[in-house]
Amino acid sequence: MWAALEPVGRHPGTGGYRRYAWTGEDATLRDWFAGEAARRGLDLTTDRAGNQWAWWGDPDATPGLAIGSHLDSVPDGGAFDGPLGVVSAFAALDALRDRDVAPGRPIAVVNFGDEEGARFGVACAGSRIITGALDPGRARGLTDADGISMAEAMTKAGHDPAHLGRDAQTLGRVGTFVELHVEQGRALVDLDAPLAVGSGIWPHGRWRVELPGEANHAGTTRLADRHDPMLAFASVVLAARVAAVRNDALATCGKVRVDPNAVNAVPSQVTGWLDARGPSAAQVRAIVAETAEVVTGHGGIVAEESWTDLTPFDPALADRLARVLGDVPVLGTGAGHDAGILAAAGVPAAMLFVRNPTGVSHSPAEHADHADCLSGVAALATVITDLTR
Amino acid sequence: MWAALEPVGRHPGTGGYRRYAWTGEDATLRDWFAGEAARRGLDLTTDRAGNQWAWWGDPDATPGLAIGSHLDSVPDGGAFDGPLGVVSAFAALDALRDRDVAPGRPIAVVNFGDEEGARFGVACAGSRIITGALDPGRARGLTDADGISMAEAMTKAGHDPAHLGRDAQTLGRVGTFVELHVEQGRALVDLDAPLAVGSGIWPHGRWRVELPGEANHAGTTRLADRHDPMLAFASVVLAARVAAVRNDALATCGKVRVDPNAVNAVPSQVTGWLDARGPSAAQVRAIVAETAEVVTGHGGIVAEESWTDLTPFDPALADRLARVLGDVPVLGTGAGHDAGILAAAGVPAAMLFVRNPTGVSHSPAEHADHADCLSGVAALATVITDLTR
Repeated sequence: MWAALEPVGRHPGTGGYRRYAWTGEDATLRDWFAGEAARRGLDLTTDRAGNQWAWWGDPDATPGLAIGSHLDSVPDGGAFDGPLGVVSAFAALDALRDRDVAPGRPIAVVNFGDEEGARFGVACAGSRIITGALDPGRARGLTDADGISMAEAMTKAGHDPAHLGRDAQTLGRVGTFVELHVEQGRALVDLDAPLAVGSGIWPHGRWRVELPGEANHAGTTRLADRHDPMLAFASVVLAARVAAVRNDALATCGKVRVDPNAVNAVPSQVTGWLDARGPSAAQVRAIVAETAEVVTGHGGIVAEESWTDLTPFDPALADRLARVLGDVPVLGTGAGHDAGILAAAGVPAAMLFVRNPTGVSHSPAEHADHADCLSGVAALATVITDLTR
Repeated sequence: MWAALEPVGRHPGTGGYRRYAWTGEDATLRDWFAGEAARRGLDLTTDRAGNQWAWWGDPDATPGLAIGSHLDSVPDGGAFDGPLGVVSAFAALDALRDRDVAPGRPIAVVNFGDEEGARFGVACAGSRIITGALDPGRARGLTDADGISMAEAMTKAGHDPAHLGRDAQTLGRVGTFVELHVEQGRALVDLDAPLAVGSGIWPHGRWRVELPGEANHAGTTRLADRHDPMLAFASVVLAARVAAVRNDALATCGKVRVDPNAVNAVPSQVTGWLDARGPSAAQVRAIVAETAEVVTGHGGIVAEESWTDLTPFDPALADRLARVLGDVPVLGTGAGHDAGILAAAGVPAAMLFVRNPTGVSHSPAEHADHADCLSGVAALATVITDLTR
């Protein structure tokens, strides 16, 4: 399976993946998923948002267990974030069948669409749409960098956007959801463990920082006469890091827009974005407040673009997984996942993390060792056996 | 004349001008120039680079005096940078003719093309091409943001790019060049004077700063595990300002490129640009060296993209202008101008600066008071009378 996925959407220059929702690469990945389902005699269904479900057994008779993740990527992302969960789900199913296990409830492998939100700007769009967390009208109107709307992109890819919306039938089939994912940090390296169970998703949000300035000529305007927002931006970037250290949480300034962004012009405006996350909402809010003080000191404003409070996974389910896997560590995570969207919608959900030797993620250098991937498949098979007994 | 130019290329949203080389707006400005020449019975010629010359008298009989500037703009630039010099030149000619002055040598009003380099990235392209400072092959191959080459743009605008190159005939006609320009700083405000004569163009250059990092997930990578080049960029921006203050010169970081520039990703690379200028090369070099120390401390590199040493205008000519205008101040400038390109090519050249009440330039807020503009026209008429006696 890995060999078939390896070339899809890989950029020859960067070595990174560019697998965006409702593109040709996405269609290739969906065809691959359909083929894997067909090869195993699974029943393929596509829900109202276009997520793919490959069922073993009849989920309309009794709610089943879904396992899987997503196949899309961030720009120049790695091979593991998403695909490892889908491939491991099929492999775990194969392992069960090799052992002639007869599950007591239906099992699905799922491929959630548009998890990274790389094209239309909303992460977990597929799971958000079917749970009703993303309004279908808003989803249809989201546009990519070329001004193409999600509705247009879906139509071109053969999915009717008129059907978008909360999908009660699909949700009713999912009694439990377990998502396996490569770890996106180095906690398991420090713990010297190949696997962990997820406890929940940290509170997280993003804030837009607008710093006004005065456009001016770089060669003739005295320093004292300048109102240069790039200097303010530099102070904000450093202040956010200091606040993150002080509050023992995470802050990142990964995106900036400069107007007019000319070498020989003092900018008229700099817009930066702050991504902040942490174990508690109080820690994250403290980072934002401390950074905002610097922003307002420079005459700027901070606008909240999104905020998601702590999303705990089902505690009994997490405990059960950790126990059946032999007391593996339990970790929180600062990354959003479809499992978090489903958990917030009331679906019992859990996650398994596979060790990442460098911690690098969202990068071509993202990696997981072969042995750890196989441990993940074995753990998933154990979990399925336990949860479908 | 001002009323006719006012709407050309003005963006309704920003109020700034977008007059780029070889566009429809540029063609409108060229038609305007040709009309002003025809109305006065001047002989219009277009040189090998497409610069327009409107001659009064025969410059092939004896080298003449050229006055003028340019009509193009930076993105969202002001109304005065360039056009004030062209309009003032026509107005000064009118003033002489009203007084029935019979000049002792030919006089031209000139419109240099592509002075700002906003479209193809090379400033003063028109004057650089005819003086040989810009290789014609390189010029033809320069591309704009849409990938259109200068050769293609010229062809579309009706100018044959095959003729680009040093234009000895045109240069031979120019015995002296005087460019009037709005001041781009506030020196004349402090000196309480409406006009100044230029002494020369400061040493100036641009440097590219490449800061490597490690792409990573903003929500899961611990601060201690990060290699975040945005933090390095922030330090470099602040270090450049400190170095500029210390060396009593100018440094600007007006442009930055972030890869991948995503809110939830630690960047893999940040590329910044440093523009540095000052009265002496030593001051500018000191700024760059002090900034480079911070860059290399973060594992980055500094690459020189351009460097122009001090370009003095003809000292005897500057003295003569200052004297005939009644001992007006003499100022250096950190901005490049066509007068500097011609001076570097051996043409006796001079500049007149008109007071800018705010010092703001390259911005819709750029301004010069009506009375100061009229002082500029009167000064130009005085200078023409003196230099063509």
